[in-house]
Amino acid sequence: MSRLSRPWWSLLWRRSILPFTKPSSGGAGLMSVHIDINCDMGESYGRWTLGADEEIMPNIPSANIACGFHGGDPHVMRRSVELAVQHGVAVGAHPGLPDLMGFGRRRMDVSPQEIKDIHRYQVGALYGFAKAAGTTLQHVKAHGIQYHMFEENLPLGRASAEQVVELDPNLILMTMAMTRYDAEARKVKGCRVAPGHGHRHQDERSEEHTSELQSRSDLVCRLLLEKKKKQT
Amino acid sequence: MSRLSRPWWSLLWRRSILPFTKPSSGGAGLMSVHIDINCDMGESYGRWTLGADEEIMPNIPSANIACGFHGGDPHVMRRSVELAVQHGVAVGAHPGLPDLMGFGRRRMDVSPQEIKDIHRYQVGALYGFAKAAGTTLQHVKAHGIQYHMFEENLPLGRASAEQVVELDPNLILMTMAMTRYDAEARKVKGCRVAPGHGHRHQDERSEEHTSELQSRSDLVCRLLLEKKKKQT
Amino acid sequence: MSRLSRPWWSLLWRRSILPFTKPSSGGAGLMSVHIDINCDMGESYGRWTLGADEEIMPNIPSANIACGFHGGDPHVMRRSVELAVQHGVAVGAHPGLPDLMGFGRRRMDVSPQEIKDIHRYQVGALYGFAKAAGTTLQHVKAHGIQYHMFEENLPLGRASAEQVVELDPNLILMTMAMTRYDAEARKVKGCRVAPGHGHRHQDERSEEHTSELQSRSDLVCRLLLEKKKKQT
Amino acid sequence: MSRLSRPWWSLLWRRSILPFTKPSSGGAGLMSVHIDINCDMGESYGRWTLGADEEIMPNIPSANIACGFHGGDPHVMRRSVELAVQHGVAVGAHPGLPDLMGFGRRRMDVSPQEIKDIHRYQVGALYGFAKAAGTTLQHVKAHGIQYHMFEENLPLGRASAEQVVELDPNLILMTMAMTRYDAEARKVKGCRVAPGHGHRHQDERSEEHTSELQSRSDLVCRLLLEKKKKQT
Repeated sequence: MSRLSRPWWSLLWRRSILPFTKPSSGGAGLMSVHIDINCDMGESYGRWTLGADEEIMPNIPSANIACGFHGGDPHVMRRSVELAVQHGVAVGAHPGLPDLMGFGRRRMDVSPQEIKDIHRYQVGALYGFAKAAGTTLQHVKAHGIQYHMFEENLPLGRASAEQVVELDPNLILMTMAMTRYDAEARKVKGCRVAPGHGHRHQDERSEEHTSELQSRSDLVCRLLLEKKKKQT
Repeated sequence: MSRLSRPWWSLLWRRSILPFTKPSSGGAGLMSVHIDINCDMGESYGRWTLGADEEIMPNIPSANIACGFHGGDPHVMRRSVELAVQHGVAVGAHPGLPDLMGFGRRRMDVSPQEIKDIHRYQVGALYGFAKAAGTTLQHVKAHGIQYHMFEENLPLGRASAEQVVELDPNLILMTMAMTRYDAEARKVKGCRVAPGHGHRHQDERSEEHTSELQSRSDLVCRLLLEKKKKQT
Repeated sequence: MSRLSRPWWSLLWRRSILPFTKPSSGGAGLMSVHIDINCDMGESYGRWTLGADEEIMPNIPSANIACGFHGGDPHVMRRSVELAVQHGVAVGAHPGLPDLMGFGRRRMDVSPQEIKDIHRYQVGALYGFAKAAGTTLQHVKAHGIQYHMFEENLPLGRASAEQVVELDPNLILMTMAMTRYDAEARKVKGCRVAPGHGHRHQDERSEEHTSELQSRSDLVCRLLLEKKKKQT
Repeated sequence: MSRLSRPWWSLLWRRSILPFTKPSSGGAGLMSVHIDINCDMGESYGRWTLGADEEIMPNIPSANIACGFHGGDPHVMRRSVELAVQHGVAVGAHPGLPDLMGFGRRRMDVSPQEIKDIHRYQVGALYGFAKAAGTTLQHVKAHGIQYHMFEENLPLGRASAEQVVELDPNLILMTMAMTRYDAEARKVKGCRVAPGHGHRHQDERSEEHTSELQSRSDLVCRLLLEKKKKQT
């Protein structure tokens, strides 16, 4: 599975959107849960290739597509959206900090208004490619270090949620389950928040591979990929 | 009028959209012509200010707002769109070549597909700000050296027109009257082409201030500004 | 004096380099102090102009010239160095964080090694222009928010000093008097540290215009400028 | 040899620097020719890796190191220079056009003065890393599309030669043998011109793999690499 070594897998229970189906009172106690797996895609830039997008895209329901600030360029974005549409993958925007050299992984001291503006710019840019490809955006998921920034600085996280609502209330904001960021985003009226449950960054396995959620995420990934392989 | 010294005024007869009203047969021979004046706006960047947007915006019907590649940044774009909405000015995208250092004024050897992608990215980005501000985009107008490139390399110009139609057939593409670019764009099915008639770049007066159209453009500018002054 | 409204004046007693001359025992009690005033210059970029470099340069002994990351571009840098040489002004490098949009004023979470590398790159780049213009670099002075970062994160400040020594022990590192950064830099063996005493950022007058050092700095600036005016 | 698939090998007879040793009159007619093979290195950027620098560096006498405009960043540059020094490889600057997205492979309409400035900036930046690593720069070799630009626009090529002489007459300028650029550069007084003989871009083999020089270049590359392998 070395070809999957880079991407950031994220397991998502769309609780807020597709809540757990309660077990029927006299039934077998079955529960229907909608599980989404999304993967960071489109992080190549110019002459540089990153990830194995063409191999992964057929296996996932949702893609977080980089929007040019930490990775991705207009040409990569177009091809990523077209690839997603081709495989019936839902398109999400993956806005990053304006730090191409640092791949959006270095904290930057930005204001809530700046977060709004740099997200809106990038989400809008991806929207253009989605619209021209006959689809629309499903979600927005902040890239890289922003998750930590939002956890430490709630007004920043709140701004990311307000941005989404002000731009398009149909857009889903992806957060991380059981975080302060998730709780803060839910306070923003009208925001469709979907918390991710664990994420797996294979090339940083040692430090992120510990939680039980992580294991569950891995399990689901593996199952889905194996199922997909059998089908093909 | 030194505060107007930088912008690029463009006089636009929206012939293709709002054709000349024919004089009524037995009437006074009056002809109604819709004239639009648009101005390049939002070309500040970060710490650097360019233009006198706040003073000019109240005086124009349409603004061509820079989208980040040759000028403008996400914060400038938001403020420019808000300023336009506040004054009832129609918002247009002004996509540039990816050359911030050269302000989009240096020819770059880009392919038709690259023109499409870099325009789509920028137009989409501006669309995000327009949508969040409660308006939408009226038009797209290429920035800087691209007019010359499109004139010399018709497939590039055609790509700029196709991009607009593929993104949103309601968008107007601004060209320049009596050019090969204008003729080429008109061949693109469904493209709403609006040719500009002359432009005035005040800080380069000597080389561009000669044509009769130029004089008419100046006349209209002056009339509109004076009228505006009287009103206020 | 509105034309001086932008630059960051910095008053520098080169104590570490040219220590106070002790008053001679039986003499008049006079003390010779070398005072240097340096000013941030060359912060224009591409189409955007910032500052009044041509008017200020003749009045200062030292210039801190932006090196392309927060401001300045290769063309601005060449002209700034040539202007400095023309007026006998000592050339210093003013490296910034890689954040053109934020003008190097936003904290970024960089490592000591990253500080070394981004300073070395910029100082080297300016050195090229200095060498071709027949001069060399006198000093290095970090730009913008880095002073605060170095004060809070001493290893970063230390890295900025080590960078200078490792590149060229003749280079002077400008710090700020009575700071932890200054003390830390002095621990770096072989580093020629010169502490600045107060700085004045005229467009942020309210928050920075309070100290007594500030007043003295202003006084010296005014005296020098008036003296210059009389001469011309 | 797939790991060598990307780099641009260039075979260089340093004719101008180390001219052919004349055969001794009564001797065996042997001729000593100094042959240099240089390879483009350090073209990774931030999160993106390009090339197999660590494997190639031990096998070459000279490296053309990217300087941040088309590829390379300050951190990559430092590591590339250190790697070169470690293996006794001569360090050369490989300045590119300011077009990271296009990897310096798109023609840009720059003036001779702009070529001088963007080269000087980048060469200076690399010089900083070389000096701190205890070495100095051997040569300058323009990157990418510039070779074609210089061939079509001789004043541009001439500017690249003048830049080198004005910065440091000891620097060697690498050109391409039997080109107009090479002839133009030789007219610049004091310029040490070294023409390359063929180049091989393995990932573009089809279009560049034809000439006899090319074959010779390949032969030498193969011989050197095989010799190296035997030694190790």
